[in-house]
Amino acid sequence: MPIEVEAVVIRGKGGPEVLSLDVITIRDPGPSEVRVRVRAAGLNRADTLQRRGFYPAPKGAPADVPGLEFAGEVEAVGEGVFDVKVGDRVMGITAGGGMAQAIVVHERELVRIPEGLDFVQAAAIPEVFMTAFDALFLQGGLGPGKAALLHAAASGIGTAGAQLAHAVGARAFGTLRSPEKLARLEGFGFEALVVAKEKRFEDELRAVLPGGADVILDTVGAAYLEQNLDVLAPRGVLVIIGMMGGTRAEVSLNTLLAKRATIRGSVLRSRPLEEKAALARAFEQQVLPLFESGRCRPVVDEVFPAKEIAAAHVAMEANRNVGKLVVTFG
Amino acid sequence: MPIEVEAVVIRGKGGPEVLSLDVITIRDPGPSEVRVRVRAAGLNRADTLQRRGFYPAPKGAPADVPGLEFAGEVEAVGEGVFDVKVGDRVMGITAGGGMAQAIVVHERELVRIPEGLDFVQAAAIPEVFMTAFDALFLQGGLGPGKAALLHAAASGIGTAGAQLAHAVGARAFGTLRSPEKLARLEGFGFEALVVAKEKRFEDELRAVLPGGADVILDTVGAAYLEQNLDVLAPRGVLVIIGMMGGTRAEVSLNTLLAKRATIRGSVLRSRPLEEKAALARAFEQQVLPLFESGRCRPVVDEVFPAKEIAAAHVAMEANRNVGKLVVTFG
Repeated sequence: MPIEVEAVVIRGKGGPEVLSLDVITIRDPGPSEVRVRVRAAGLNRADTLQRRGFYPAPKGAPADVPGLEFAGEVEAVGEGVFDVKVGDRVMGITAGGGMAQAIVVHERELVRIPEGLDFVQAAAIPEVFMTAFDALFLQGGLGPGKAALLHAAASGIGTAGAQLAHAVGARAFGTLRSPEKLARLEGFGFEALVVAKEKRFEDELRAVLPGGADVILDTVGAAYLEQNLDVLAPRGVLVIIGMMGGTRAEVSLNTLLAKRATIRGSVLRSRPLEEKAALARAFEQQVLPLFESGRCRPVVDEVFPAKEIAAAHVAMEANRNVGKLVVTFG
Repeated sequence: MPIEVEAVVIRGKGGPEVLSLDVITIRDPGPSEVRVRVRAAGLNRADTLQRRGFYPAPKGAPADVPGLEFAGEVEAVGEGVFDVKVGDRVMGITAGGGMAQAIVVHERELVRIPEGLDFVQAAAIPEVFMTAFDALFLQGGLGPGKAALLHAAASGIGTAGAQLAHAVGARAFGTLRSPEKLARLEGFGFEALVVAKEKRFEDELRAVLPGGADVILDTVGAAYLEQNLDVLAPRGVLVIIGMMGGTRAEVSLNTLLAKRATIRGSVLRSRPLEEKAALARAFEQQVLPLFESGRCRPVVDEVFPAKEIAAAHVAMEANRNVGKLVVTFG
């Protein structure tokens, strides 16, 4: 039987005022699918972009219910579900619809919640840790001794990426634009942090990392492209996952060839099931143990009940957070 | 005992007139090294760039003797050489010094000459087939059913890449700028060829390959960058190995992210020994059988005795060749 649940709904394009908490219908799980009772959902910048009309949901995802990640309990299972059962604590990424009291997903997209973490902590994990894991390791080839550069060091991605790098013996470097956040970035494993003044970080980074970065995880895009290539190590990989600093920029092919460098664009949201499932399985195997041993920890900056979703968006756009903003569903 | 041999020498920067055939000294092979009596050497555009002063030899390579590939016989071996012996027919790439009657190289960089090919044919293999193999398969992930786009389809790289793609069940598409060469491009496995008028190929290529290219092997650089990204398939890989059409260009990060595309710069010349040796071994295992079964063949356009090296450079710069220009050493 379909159920009715509360969900964050985007009612037109605009500011946080277009968000409301409405009742929506969630269908039954089909074969291999699971309905999860969502207890908490991480907020992402993509949610605010979608609200403003700049990041429409891909096909198959609900057009007006945002939310790219969730944590909760398995509440119902469809036919042929083998890997999870009712009552299991699970989390995951999704192309949309995570900001609701329930969501239906394929069982292979789910990741179990590590022992010892509650739903709020778990909701702060999937997007940032899976993105950083995928970009740094699966795409960038990061490993022991190699150097990773993380822009927006204080963001969820930055604090996740630094912890993952540090946990496997790689070196983590970061840039950030808000010097007042520096004091809050202790303990994540950054070897050095550079405050980018007027969008410049190259000279200061070179002083602390003269050999260059083997992998760069970038959310800025155009404004950093030239500097990113300049501070990349030979054979380095620049993984661009965001374009907060513009979408078009000139690239020096001389530098690209001389360094034998790689530039990749990466997004999780639009990936097909088989890729999301493969990432979930690799993540469960390689990253979950790091949470259980305490080498990595989710970074929750602030928690909002769902009825305060507008305030959560305001906080995201004020850009004062270190780590994640999490929305809870009763 | 060091030996004296004839070699092509670059006497200052300039036109083909700065080339001469001079006597140089070749040292004895050291441990793990081999001296090869060079019978033929392929000419590359890089030789003409080096002659003009635009592509200096990397450290360790002779500054004034060009030549990035060679074919000949093992003439002397140093201590601890296990894989080749005097008299073996071998070929290989090198960072310089190939245009001489003899060259000393590490034994692991050598590839044996396939049965049934003479030295002139063999000299037309290493640079173009190893470059295309490395770029299309090792870096681009080409395989059965995938589509490769080769710019400069009539060049050595283009004719090699099309044969390799075709031989493994991949699809080969090409662009070229000289329509008069079209008739000579039969039999290399191209599924379709597009003549780029005023540097535009995008619309015509899309008509024959609407799904886009999974791998693009590009020697043009800046002038084709935007079109290359536009005709790349989702998750496609653009491998840039040359910049004949400029070194700086704007890139659309929107397209890069939407396609989850990869752009890589690649060069063989500056690679360290371990990478060249690894490539030689992979090439010997995976590509040599294709020559021995007749699925691939070297493409020799014209042969010049070493004393006519200036004429060979003139021919290269006239850009009329289909396939390779080869220089022979007596």
